[in-house]
Amino acid sequence: MTFQPGTMGVVVQNIERADQNIIDGLAECGVATVHEAQGRKGLLADCIRPIYPGARIAGSAVTILAPPCDNWMIHVAIEQLRPGDVMLLGTTTPSNGGYFGDLLAASALARGCRGLIIDGGVRDIRDLTEMGFPVWSKTVHAQGTIKETLGSVNVPVVCADELVNPGDVVVADDDGVCIVRREEAAEVLEKACTREANEKSRRARFEAGELGLDIYGMRERLAEKGLKYV
Amino acid sequence: MTFQPGTMGVVVQNIERADQNIIDGLAECGVATVHEAQGRKGLLADCIRPIYPGARIAGSAVTILAPPCDNWMIHVAIEQLRPGDVMLLGTTTPSNGGYFGDLLAASALARGCRGLIIDGGVRDIRDLTEMGFPVWSKTVHAQGTIKETLGSVNVPVVCADELVNPGDVVVADDDGVCIVRREEAAEVLEKACTREANEKSRRARFEAGELGLDIYGMRERLAEKGLKYV
Amino acid sequence: MTFQPGTMGVVVQNIERADQNIIDGLAECGVATVHEAQGRKGLLADCIRPIYPGARIAGSAVTILAPPCDNWMIHVAIEQLRPGDVMLLGTTTPSNGGYFGDLLAASALARGCRGLIIDGGVRDIRDLTEMGFPVWSKTVHAQGTIKETLGSVNVPVVCADELVNPGDVVVADDDGVCIVRREEAAEVLEKACTREANEKSRRARFEAGELGLDIYGMRERLAEKGLKYV
Amino acid sequence: MTFQPGTMGVVVQNIERADQNIIDGLAECGVATVHEAQGRKGLLADCIRPIYPGARIAGSAVTILAPPCDNWMIHVAIEQLRPGDVMLLGTTTPSNGGYFGDLLAASALARGCRGLIIDGGVRDIRDLTEMGFPVWSKTVHAQGTIKETLGSVNVPVVCADELVNPGDVVVADDDGVCIVRREEAAEVLEKACTREANEKSRRARFEAGELGLDIYGMRERLAEKGLKYV
Amino acid sequence: MTFQPGTMGVVVQNIERADQNIIDGLAECGVATVHEAQGRKGLLADCIRPIYPGARIAGSAVTILAPPCDNWMIHVAIEQLRPGDVMLLGTTTPSNGGYFGDLLAASALARGCRGLIIDGGVRDIRDLTEMGFPVWSKTVHAQGTIKETLGSVNVPVVCADELVNPGDVVVADDDGVCIVRREEAAEVLEKACTREANEKSRRARFEAGELGLDIYGMRERLAEKGLKYV
Amino acid sequence: MTFQPGTMGVVVQNIERADQNIIDGLAECGVATVHEAQGRKGLLADCIRPIYPGARIAGSAVTILAPPCDNWMIHVAIEQLRPGDVMLLGTTTPSNGGYFGDLLAASALARGCRGLIIDGGVRDIRDLTEMGFPVWSKTVHAQGTIKETLGSVNVPVVCADELVNPGDVVVADDDGVCIVRREEAAEVLEKACTREANEKSRRARFEAGELGLDIYGMRERLAEKGLKYV
Repeated sequence: MTFQPGTMGVVVQNIERADQNIIDGLAECGVATVHEAQGRKGLLADCIRPIYPGARIAGSAVTILAPPCDNWMIHVAIEQLRPGDVMLLGTTTPSNGGYFGDLLAASALARGCRGLIIDGGVRDIRDLTEMGFPVWSKTVHAQGTIKETLGSVNVPVVCADELVNPGDVVVADDDGVCIVRREEAAEVLEKACTREANEKSRRARFEAGELGLDIYGMRERLAEKGLKYV
Repeated sequence: MTFQPGTMGVVVQNIERADQNIIDGLAECGVATVHEAQGRKGLLADCIRPIYPGARIAGSAVTILAPPCDNWMIHVAIEQLRPGDVMLLGTTTPSNGGYFGDLLAASALARGCRGLIIDGGVRDIRDLTEMGFPVWSKTVHAQGTIKETLGSVNVPVVCADELVNPGDVVVADDDGVCIVRREEAAEVLEKACTREANEKSRRARFEAGELGLDIYGMRERLAEKGLKYV
Repeated sequence: MTFQPGTMGVVVQNIERADQNIIDGLAECGVATVHEAQGRKGLLADCIRPIYPGARIAGSAVTILAPPCDNWMIHVAIEQLRPGDVMLLGTTTPSNGGYFGDLLAASALARGCRGLIIDGGVRDIRDLTEMGFPVWSKTVHAQGTIKETLGSVNVPVVCADELVNPGDVVVADDDGVCIVRREEAAEVLEKACTREANEKSRRARFEAGELGLDIYGMRERLAEKGLKYV
Repeated sequence: MTFQPGTMGVVVQNIERADQNIIDGLAECGVATVHEAQGRKGLLADCIRPIYPGARIAGSAVTILAPPCDNWMIHVAIEQLRPGDVMLLGTTTPSNGGYFGDLLAASALARGCRGLIIDGGVRDIRDLTEMGFPVWSKTVHAQGTIKETLGSVNVPVVCADELVNPGDVVVADDDGVCIVRREEAAEVLEKACTREANEKSRRARFEAGELGLDIYGMRERLAEKGLKYV
Repeated sequence: MTFQPGTMGVVVQNIERADQNIIDGLAECGVATVHEAQGRKGLLADCIRPIYPGARIAGSAVTILAPPCDNWMIHVAIEQLRPGDVMLLGTTTPSNGGYFGDLLAASALARGCRGLIIDGGVRDIRDLTEMGFPVWSKTVHAQGTIKETLGSVNVPVVCADELVNPGDVVVADDDGVCIVRREEAAEVLEKACTREANEKSRRARFEAGELGLDIYGMRERLAEKGLKYV
Repeated sequence: MTFQPGTMGVVVQNIERADQNIIDGLAECGVATVHEAQGRKGLLADCIRPIYPGARIAGSAVTILAPPCDNWMIHVAIEQLRPGDVMLLGTTTPSNGGYFGDLLAASALARGCRGLIIDGGVRDIRDLTEMGFPVWSKTVHAQGTIKETLGSVNVPVVCADELVNPGDVVVADDDGVCIVRREEAAEVLEKACTREANEKSRRARFEAGELGLDIYGMRERLAEKGLKYV
């Protein structure tokens, strides 16, 4: 059963997920490679930054649509988590409230959650860092939220300029966050691995001092476009 | 035939549109009323502002997905326009290039287009104002764009934090821009009209000096919550 | 009875106001002159802009402290308005919700309110413009608000970087918004009028072609500081 | 003797401070807990960030009101510091000048100062990090400041949207900065400690896999509001 | 005699200016056309906006380098103005002070100045509008400035991301501001006029319903790139 | 041979560089000291931040002018690098594309490049950190760029509000980035060293508890300006 993005008051309990090996493979490739491998789509806006450096995860999206400064739906979402999932929260209107902290992280970790992507704020940074629960957020803000208005869990949501469906694969590292459609995950992983292999061999050539101008054969086209060396 | 949001290199030629009378009715209700009537969803982020005050339109969305600083797809989209349509452009990555000016407006007007919503920049403001071609944009910028990379026309796009499907109804006025799903347009119009009627009668009471505290019967709940008058 | 800024759940019913003639005099002087006359203090941050050009008002502040995206307290505040008052709303955390529209404006106008200053969003711009109800806001946003959480009315609030006490004089025009302490209003008006008289005579000299370098006798000090003409 | 916020040209020498044990207790509780314990007030805007991670302090506010790009008053303020104090600087108009660096930090440390909160810029980040002098600032900027215009020390100032009185308790950590009124510090500490105890027991339950839906008994109210599981 | 950008404490009195007919021709072409005609360079960042709609000017740049919140150099610059000049102010560090108001405008008008471009703030908007003195600024802000620190007049300055030399031609309208090098002004005007003529004939074709796809012969290249119509 | 800032389609192959010992001396002094030593000019805007803490470099600028989201010119620039150089990239219009990653870093390192300053985005943060290739950028963004449009190498460019000439000395550390004109580098280093020596002796006095008020003899001037101690 599928819902329109923005549908309120609904919790979808059974979502399809990509194969865990594929997900783990995408995590290893990282955001920049995956983004290129799937034709430069799916990247969240660059306002979303990790709360500490070095984390590198992938997981199936359990999506959350939340009203401004209201984190009620996170509690609802946690019940829907399976090991290897990543929570991803979009809001019905821009908000920088502090939706998430150490208690919710403890609860999510207990269910095997790998992290949170949130188009809003987060708090208890020190605790989250110590717990090793990575968050990519728009801001850090201790401002508390309320539990008054329904949103939804596992409907498609827009988060930092991208549409995310429940079960899509979320890849996140120091470069940001990239979304891979569940149905395309296997194909994207394959392309990403090919890309990685190419990059490895190319990197060796770059390290040996060869120039991109020669590796990619750019000199002729630059001349055609009229580039002048003086 | 439907496509995933973000699909590149595709032009969908036949899209379904809502009934024109319904669209015109939504324009008359305006953004704030329509947004409320459909349960407070569909509103574009408030960074999207009109280039001149007073315009009030609605139309079927011809959606455009465009690369940064590349307006090639607008030329492609104009061929797909029918009278009463509104162009709506999202970008593959944030961009403030000046994608649109007076020539494209002349072309769009010749096909009966009612306006443009753009998550980017626009130029020739004086000409557009004189022509009466309304634009809601993120910025005004004379910076030219190129025509090098494919995007798509009439696939779902994310524009200013909202997903828009081709054929969805775009409502725009001085308050901003709101999207109504094509399939929900008739029902939303009905609710919006009811709301308008209620507001008209309520406004008369407000103008006569009655207080919202009494009209909405708020005093008891405020007291329960503990509000103290001193 | 006075309260700490940020006190929640309180409505102060009887506030002192400045003399209406003084308030009207400050409106005539305008924001820039008043701001200078009181030693360059009291100016709200420049993110606060009028929704239409040309309005120029002053009034006694009825202050509102509101939770994010919750406009319940505006209804409470309207009951406290007296003719000549200006509502001024600060939030407990940054918010760009659309707190205010035409119904509340009708209600406020019925009680003689002269306008609204809001560190948040407003909607129904076309109606407000037609009604001649001026608003200075951080944004225009149709996003609706809820009525769930208490704030306060007529406690000191911080609005756009400035502390405002209930009964302080709010001066607003195309240049922005300036706050004058109630107790200092008479003295500030006097200084502002003197300043206006001086400016009028100076402006005549400027229009006649005299230079600021000579009117203010700046040449010597510039030379002392080492300015070189080449 | 108390002054209006924004008073210029004044240094208040004797301010009252909260009890040092209470202050230290608040530091241990941290910003998020303290903010909740006092009813979600007193939090500085989230644009204020620490220059390095991991610092966690509290202290009595020695407040500084400074003109744009003018740090003269910091020199004046340092003389007023007592061991355990925190300097907190607001500006008369928004400024991102680099008001503070290693020399001033050395001077402040020599007087037992625990850190600086500044609604402006700071420089010498590497030195400050090595010295262990924590700063929470709006930006990092090497731009020098001048010493030309008076401000004030120990008058109430607005800093990042909050009013701070001299002697108020400043609590700061990776989550941001929260202000506790001096007179309320004891009561807030008590509530914060209770809250901490509750959170600790709750965290154990969350870690054991219990859900917030059950711990807080939310299921019934969610059903009443109409949440549908599908 | 020429100076490095950023030189402080210097006033260059004799600068070369472009031919007045060329300047006036560029004003008629407008910002978007001129920007295209000179190869898409010289455009100021889109944060610079006009204080009222409809103004369209060009003039020789009298450049001003000003410290933050210090407008002393504007007084110095006005003495250097000749009829047809435009003042253009960059700051030594980002500033949103209100550097300019009605008295300075009266003085500048008395010397034949056509307007002001300022990477900072301006005030007295109502007066400037009534006087017909157009300003393009980063913000509107009543915040006063001081007269303490030297800057320069007629040295090269960076303003809103562009380098401007004294005597360069400034073109400004509702689309923003574009700089034309003095030595290139004649050639740019010629290209701009050609472009205008082309655009006029093209606009007629667009208005008649021809498509850009056909006018520019884009169909083949789109097909080559792989665009699919479905 | 010199070119106007903004010249497109040109690669200048032989640029003059400052003496390497002077460059290394400036690196040791650091940004804040160098900025002061040269009279508070040359500082890039504070939006430019390092991708990891602790780097401290200086080098001769190889300047790059790049179109939005197009990194072709970086490949061209790398061929022009000599050991000890720093690449510095400005864009023709604001862009946050991810222009630079690990392959280009490997190539630049192979030629002895010390780092990159970029008024745009960068990706592969983890790799760059491991390689020890420091970047100061406006944002981190995995968004790929294209290779379609010419820019220039080694013409003067504006980067984050400052004009930079090829061969100017770039100094960068945790405080940001400062530009020293090549011809002034020796003199600036001398002043910076003097300043460092002074600061060292002053810091000892500050650490010993002396006050700035006394060290700089400020008390009299503060009294003259009217500062009141109460």
